[in-house]
Amino acid sequence: MLIDIPDKRKARIVIIGGGFGGIHLAKKISDKNIQVIILDRNNYHTFQPLLYQVATSALEAESIAYPIRKIFHRNRNVFFRLGEVKEVVPSEKKVLIDNDHLFYDYLVIATGAKTNYFGIEGLTISSMPMKSINEALDLRTMILQNFEKILMISNERKKQGYMNFVIAGGGPTGVELAGALGEMKQNLFPKDYPELDLSKMNIFLVHSGDRLLQMFSPASSERAKRYLENLGVTMVLNTRVLDIQGDYVQTSTGKDLIARTLIWTAGVTGNPVSGIEQCVNKSGRIKVDEFNRVTGLENIFAIGDVSCMESELYPGGHPQVATVAIQQGERLAKNLMRLLNRKPLKPFRYFNKGSMATIGKNKAVIELAGLKAGGSVAWLIWVFVHLMSLVGFRNKAITLFNWIRYYFSSDHGLRLIITPFNLLEEKRKRRKELEKT
Amino acid sequence: MLIDIPDKRKARIVIIGGGFGGIHLAKKISDKNIQVIILDRNNYHTFQPLLYQVATSALEAESIAYPIRKIFHRNRNVFFRLGEVKEVVPSEKKVLIDNDHLFYDYLVIATGAKTNYFGIEGLTISSMPMKSINEALDLRTMILQNFEKILMISNERKKQGYMNFVIAGGGPTGVELAGALGEMKQNLFPKDYPELDLSKMNIFLVHSGDRLLQMFSPASSERAKRYLENLGVTMVLNTRVLDIQGDYVQTSTGKDLIARTLIWTAGVTGNPVSGIEQCVNKSGRIKVDEFNRVTGLENIFAIGDVSCMESELYPGGHPQVATVAIQQGERLAKNLMRLLNRKPLKPFRYFNKGSMATIGKNKAVIELAGLKAGGSVAWLIWVFVHLMSLVGFRNKAITLFNWIRYYFSSDHGLRLIITPFNLLEEKRKRRKELEKT
Repeated sequence: MLIDIPDKRKARIVIIGGGFGGIHLAKKISDKNIQVIILDRNNYHTFQPLLYQVATSALEAESIAYPIRKIFHRNRNVFFRLGEVKEVVPSEKKVLIDNDHLFYDYLVIATGAKTNYFGIEGLTISSMPMKSINEALDLRTMILQNFEKILMISNERKKQGYMNFVIAGGGPTGVELAGALGEMKQNLFPKDYPELDLSKMNIFLVHSGDRLLQMFSPASSERAKRYLENLGVTMVLNTRVLDIQGDYVQTSTGKDLIARTLIWTAGVTGNPVSGIEQCVNKSGRIKVDEFNRVTGLENIFAIGDVSCMESELYPGGHPQVATVAIQQGERLAKNLMRLLNRKPLKPFRYFNKGSMATIGKNKAVIELAGLKAGGSVAWLIWVFVHLMSLVGFRNKAITLFNWIRYYFSSDHGLRLIITPFNLLEEKRKRRKELEKT
Repeated sequence: MLIDIPDKRKARIVIIGGGFGGIHLAKKISDKNIQVIILDRNNYHTFQPLLYQVATSALEAESIAYPIRKIFHRNRNVFFRLGEVKEVVPSEKKVLIDNDHLFYDYLVIATGAKTNYFGIEGLTISSMPMKSINEALDLRTMILQNFEKILMISNERKKQGYMNFVIAGGGPTGVELAGALGEMKQNLFPKDYPELDLSKMNIFLVHSGDRLLQMFSPASSERAKRYLENLGVTMVLNTRVLDIQGDYVQTSTGKDLIARTLIWTAGVTGNPVSGIEQCVNKSGRIKVDEFNRVTGLENIFAIGDVSCMESELYPGGHPQVATVAIQQGERLAKNLMRLLNRKPLKPFRYFNKGSMATIGKNKAVIELAGLKAGGSVAWLIWVFVHLMSLVGFRNKAITLFNWIRYYFSSDHGLRLIITPFNLLEEKRKRRKELEKT
C-alpha cells in the first residue's frame, strides 16, 4: 500500500496517466466520497499539441505544461503519486509502482501513445521523437547545436548534413513542425547566423501518402502544401523513411537524403502497461467495449490513445487525438458514477469537432463541422482554440504574450540550448535499452 | 583558424566568456573596424543573481538567460562561437577550442568563478551547486522530487532526510535561497502536499561566520536573520559544513544534520583557462595589474570574478560580484581603444554601488551609498534594480508578470520536474571526473 494515502471511502479509482483523458476524467468525478489516485511518471500534465513550439523555441516548456497537483488543489479527494507503473495485477486488483503497490476498486489506464520506431535501431538511437517536454527540449538543443557546429566545420559535405532537416510524417505534427522550422529559416537564422548561406538549408517533409494531412479534405491538403512551399519546405510524398545512418536518411524510393537530423513523427503505438498483454492488439492498443471497459477484465477501463474501441464508424478504433481522450474521460466519469449507483452505463459516442493545423505565423487549415477555412482566419481560430485549451491563467497569458510579440517582431524570444548536448547521447543509449525491454 | 570568420580588420579581440564582464566589454567596443569574437560553452548569457528563483521554480530558465547572438544582432563586427576552450597559447597568440584553434591580437579572459568543493568527494558528488542554469534546474528537480519521494516512504528516519534542506553559506546566494525555500514551505508545499506534516520540514542555513551577509552592516545582518526566522529558517552560525554522506551532513561542530539535500554556496574559486597557470594565484584567480593586464603576459587581459587586481582598498582583489565585472569590462573596452590609438591606459577604479539581498516575497536588505534600508521599501528597490538589469524586453515583461502574480497569489506558476532525475546521477559522475582533471 502506498504510504500516506488515507483509507478510501466509498471506492478508490486509480488512474494511470495524467494526460488529457486522465485529467478530464478526474476533474469530472463529482462524488466527494470517491477517492481518486492519479499516477504519472511526470509531475505535470503536458499540452502535447504545442510541443513543436517548444522544440522550435517559440514557447518555453513551462507554458505548455502544468503541475498535476496544482490542477487538483481544490479536490481533496484527488491524490497524485509520481512514479513508474511496473505492472497491473488484475487478479489482486493491484498496481505495482516503483518498489511499492496500490490496490484499486476501479482502474483506468490512460497511458496514451508512444513513438513507434518499428524496431529499427537507427531510428531508435538517432532519430528525434517529439512526444514529451524532454524530447521537445532535446530537439531544440539539436536544431540550435547544428548551426553552431556548422560554423566550426570546414568540410562542405559535413556542413550539409548539419544544415538539412528531415521530418518523417505528414500528419499535423510533421506539418506544424515543418512550418515552424521554415519560419526559423526565414526569420530567425538569418539574424542569428549572418555568416551562413541559408539558401543551402533544406527542410524535407517525407510522407508515405500522396498528400499531407490525410484526415483533411484534398483542398486543405493542397493549401497546407502551398503554405509550406512558401516557407521553403520541400515535400517528398509517396515515400517512407527507412533508417538513418550517420548523415544519410534512407528512404523507400532508394533516394537517400543528406541530413544528420531526422525528426520522427511517422509512427505511434499504444503505450499499454504490462500485466494485461492478452488485451492488447497488434498496434499496441487495449481493446475496450463501448463503455471503455477492457475486454475480458473486471473493473479495468482504458481511455484515450492507448484504448481501441472498434465501431462501425471507426472499425480500427478512434483517431489518437486529444478530443477523443477528453470525451472518453468525461463519459467514463459519468459511467463510473452510474456504476457505483447501480445504474446502467451509457455507451461512448465520439463527437468529432474537426481538425486544424497551423503552418507558420499566420496560416492554418481548419475543418470544423461543415466549415472549411484557411489563411489568417483559420490561424486566428487556431490561436483562440489553443489558448482556451491551455491549463491555467499564467500559461494562457504568457503564451498569448509570446505569440503577439512574435507576430509583430518575428523574433523568437528564447532559443537557449538547455539540455547539455553530451547528455543526448546518454539519453539515446537509454532509449535503446528501453526499446529492448 | 575557426571556419567562417572573415579576415580581421584593424585587430581581433577574442573574449572567453559571455558573462557580465565579457558582454559589457563587447558592447562597448565602438570601433567597427575591430573584430570581436566571443567564446562560451553556452549559447546564452546567464543573469546569475536570479538563479535561485529558477531553482525554487519562481521563474523559468528562459527569463534569466538571453541568447548571446541576439544581444549582438546589430553589431556586425561581433562574432560568437559555441565551444569549450581547451587552452591558451600566449607564445603563439592562439586559443585552442574544441578541435579547432583561433588567433588573437588581444585576448580577454572573462571566465568567471566556479563552485569550490575543496576537493572533498562527498561535496563534489552529492552537494547541489547553483552557478548555472542547468544546476539551478537540477536543484529544482531535487527539491520537488524529495517531496514526491517522501510520500512513497514509510521509514520515518528516511522521510526526515528528504524533508530537511541544508544550505551551506550565509552570503547573498545562501540567504536568498533560504528565504525562497522558506516561502515554499509556507505558501506552496501546504497546498501541494496537504498529506504531509510540513512542521517537520527544516531549512538549515549553515554559515562559518558569526553573522549572515558579512559585507553588510551588523544591523542589516540582524534584519536578514529576523526575516529568515519568520520564514522558518534555522540559522546555524559559526559552523562549517565538512561533508555529506547519504543523509548525514557533517559539520565542524561535530553536530551532524540529517538531510539528503545539501545546497553548496559556501565556496567559489576562479575558473581560469589552462595555459597560463603561472599567472593564477592560490584562490584560482588570475593576477592582473590596474589595467586588467595579466601579469607577465603580452596582450592578455582578465576581468571579473576570474581576475584578481590587488590594491590598497582591496588587498585580496575585488569582491567577485557582477558590478565589478561590468565596470572592469567597460573600463577595458575604453583602454583597448586607447591602446589601439597609442594613448596611455587609464587604471581601473571600482565604484561600489553597494549590496542588496532579498528575503522572500516582500523583504530585503539594501545598503546603497549611504542609504541603509530594509523591509518592503528595500524589496521594491531590489525588484526595480533587478528588472532593469535583465537583458531584453521579453524577459523584463515576463519576469515582472510572474513577480506581480506571485506577490498577490503567493503561488508559483511553475514547479515542473524537467531534468529527468536519473540523469542527475550521471551529471554528478561527470562532475567528479571534471574535478579530477
